[in-house]
Amino acid sequence: MMLARDINDWKNLILMNRFALKEIDTKLNILNEEFQFIHLHNPIEYIKSRVKTPESIIEKLKRKGYEPTIQNAKEYIYDIAGIRIICSFVSDIYLIYDLIQNQSDVKVIEVKDYIRNPKPNGYQSLHLIVEIPVFLSDRIEEAKVEIQIRTIAMDFWASLEHKIFYKFNKAVPGYITKQLKECADVITHLDNKMLFIKDELEQYK
Amino acid sequence: MMLARDINDWKNLILMNRFALKEIDTKLNILNEEFQFIHLHNPIEYIKSRVKTPESIIEKLKRKGYEPTIQNAKEYIYDIAGIRIICSFVSDIYLIYDLIQNQSDVKVIEVKDYIRNPKPNGYQSLHLIVEIPVFLSDRIEEAKVEIQIRTIAMDFWASLEHKIFYKFNKAVPGYITKQLKECADVITHLDNKMLFIKDELEQYK
Amino acid sequence: MMLARDINDWKNLILMNRFALKEIDTKLNILNEEFQFIHLHNPIEYIKSRVKTPESIIEKLKRKGYEPTIQNAKEYIYDIAGIRIICSFVSDIYLIYDLIQNQSDVKVIEVKDYIRNPKPNGYQSLHLIVEIPVFLSDRIEEAKVEIQIRTIAMDFWASLEHKIFYKFNKAVPGYITKQLKECADVITHLDNKMLFIKDELEQYK
Amino acid sequence: MMLARDINDWKNLILMNRFALKEIDTKLNILNEEFQFIHLHNPIEYIKSRVKTPESIIEKLKRKGYEPTIQNAKEYIYDIAGIRIICSFVSDIYLIYDLIQNQSDVKVIEVKDYIRNPKPNGYQSLHLIVEIPVFLSDRIEEAKVEIQIRTIAMDFWASLEHKIFYKFNKAVPGYITKQLKECADVITHLDNKMLFIKDELEQYK
Repeated sequence: MMLARDINDWKNLILMNRFALKEIDTKLNILNEEFQFIHLHNPIEYIKSRVKTPESIIEKLKRKGYEPTIQNAKEYIYDIAGIRIICSFVSDIYLIYDLIQNQSDVKVIEVKDYIRNPKPNGYQSLHLIVEIPVFLSDRIEEAKVEIQIRTIAMDFWASLEHKIFYKFNKAVPGYITKQLKECADVITHLDNKMLFIKDELEQYK
Repeated sequence: MMLARDINDWKNLILMNRFALKEIDTKLNILNEEFQFIHLHNPIEYIKSRVKTPESIIEKLKRKGYEPTIQNAKEYIYDIAGIRIICSFVSDIYLIYDLIQNQSDVKVIEVKDYIRNPKPNGYQSLHLIVEIPVFLSDRIEEAKVEIQIRTIAMDFWASLEHKIFYKFNKAVPGYITKQLKECADVITHLDNKMLFIKDELEQYK
Repeated sequence: MMLARDINDWKNLILMNRFALKEIDTKLNILNEEFQFIHLHNPIEYIKSRVKTPESIIEKLKRKGYEPTIQNAKEYIYDIAGIRIICSFVSDIYLIYDLIQNQSDVKVIEVKDYIRNPKPNGYQSLHLIVEIPVFLSDRIEEAKVEIQIRTIAMDFWASLEHKIFYKFNKAVPGYITKQLKECADVITHLDNKMLFIKDELEQYK
Repeated sequence: MMLARDINDWKNLILMNRFALKEIDTKLNILNEEFQFIHLHNPIEYIKSRVKTPESIIEKLKRKGYEPTIQNAKEYIYDIAGIRIICSFVSDIYLIYDLIQNQSDVKVIEVKDYIRNPKPNGYQSLHLIVEIPVFLSDRIEEAKVEIQIRTIAMDFWASLEHKIFYKFNKAVPGYITKQLKECADVITHLDNKMLFIKDELEQYK
């Protein structure tokens, strides 16, 4: 059983992470609209975000072998606040990465490029962990946010793979794994072809 | 030049069509949530809608050889109000079609299946023209709405094709047309594979 | 303890009521925009809505001396779905009432006028119970909705009174009750004065 | 006639001001939710915002005797970006003012207290001009925002007064001016009474 005092601390942790998402969301919206204004192309199609529940943070801490404390959550769990950016084209993914890196108040502290190096099951996305200041009434807190950037097709694939993974409780039949991997390859092929057409198009500007 | 009286009539036409979109949007949201509740799957990913501007209605009337009057707009232009439904799977498209057909207050007056019969350029979507009652303060008006239903991949393709078409002012270079057609084929292949995996998945329920 | 089967039935009841709110909300928005278009004045400032939780429905059933069943909830609780319409002027309240009464698909089954007859504590609002059809995939269900219509000032008063009532667990000190009653009188005075100015203004049209 | 180059500059000015509103809106939402979390009371009821159009900026520059240039707009017009904060209680107004003043990245450059010193017509609000950094892709720009903070009742009064002022093209009949002033006095009385009740209530915490 949690004490009332503890419950409040966890609520506070969740709140700080919701604030971090608000800050990063505002920043990304401004960058997207500025880019659209200057270059007549919006690199971001849409943004989804979520904050992990205390239950899922505690479970992740235990899985990693840590005591389930607020302190450990802040130190070892980097994806309490998560934001997903969906783009039309693969080139937009790296463009957004550049825009984020150039922000003086954001610190990129980790990059995992699952597009150049897809996971064995076919998963593709660019993952960043960033730190961003949250302006509270009496202080500024640095908060970590996980940013996943992917194309529409990669996102569609990932959401189907996620459903399958949980349905089979992680023991997915081999022929479905194989089909999913094939779909991932088709998606890479499709994203490349669409990007090629877009690049051709821009030569005619 | 338009008279003030005419301007008001056109504004009124636009308003009626915005109301029709509100009605159909509410209906679709209810059907989607009801389906999600019963079958644990939401056939609709998201919905976009738009009303044509008076300028574009008048242009379309002229192109079709009609006088640009409100009366003709109501009689001959069926896509003043347009709604686009984006689904994850091809099977969802026909499911939504069924749900719409079964609504006692909606009349389907035209169906064009560009999925079973894609356009030569590769365009795929299911197009419906429906009639739906709009409840005003002193009467009920029947309004027409064009509904386009497509998968995420079909929608991505269509938006790129649209940009290209307008960029080249309808004279698209042959090799780009060819590339687009190939992309459309890849999308059909991908949508079929994803549907196959989903169908397999459902057998394990 | 509730059975899984029961939980599903309650979820279904809540869902139907959420759908009823969507339908009435769409209807009110259309009526408001139509009125704004014709008369250049929008009678509705904004709309808030809520669905009662199963817990609060069950509590209300018990308080009224009924078995806490879905069937009884449908039969005896008329405010499972509740919508609150906030207006600028008292005249708007009765205008909206007229608009609702004239809708052929809405049945007004109860009216309580706490404006002409305020509650002893000073509470003012017009309360309606209406029945509205909800279009489901395989049938049409009639659903009841409670509509509360009030001015901005009445709404402000009601929200303060509500906080006080719950804070003192219904045993509000006499001098606070008195102050609240006086505030209600000031609000009536203010709403009348503002309406007077608005009516004067309209004579100059 | 404006040159295409100029039009773009004005569009850019408007965009920067929309970004400033996004930043301040995010900040205010965080402060409001943080306060709600700690003190169980949200000082902000709701927020409205708007950016002046180029036409209205140019008109204001001319009225003030300046050349209608972008440079002058940036230097002399402080309310291109405007945000209005609506509170339940007068005490919330000054609380929000304190919260804003304590933000290290916000500079308050002007304060006009029309609550302690209402305008002759009865107008009440607290007006601030603040400067806030906007993070663009390649630089940080300081942008000015006008913040108006008022109670629900003050806001209602101000919107009626605004309609009257424009209807009579600034020549309001004397008896209406008098009625409006009386309403403003009633509002001050009402806001004080409501605040008194709230303060009493908090003593029982």
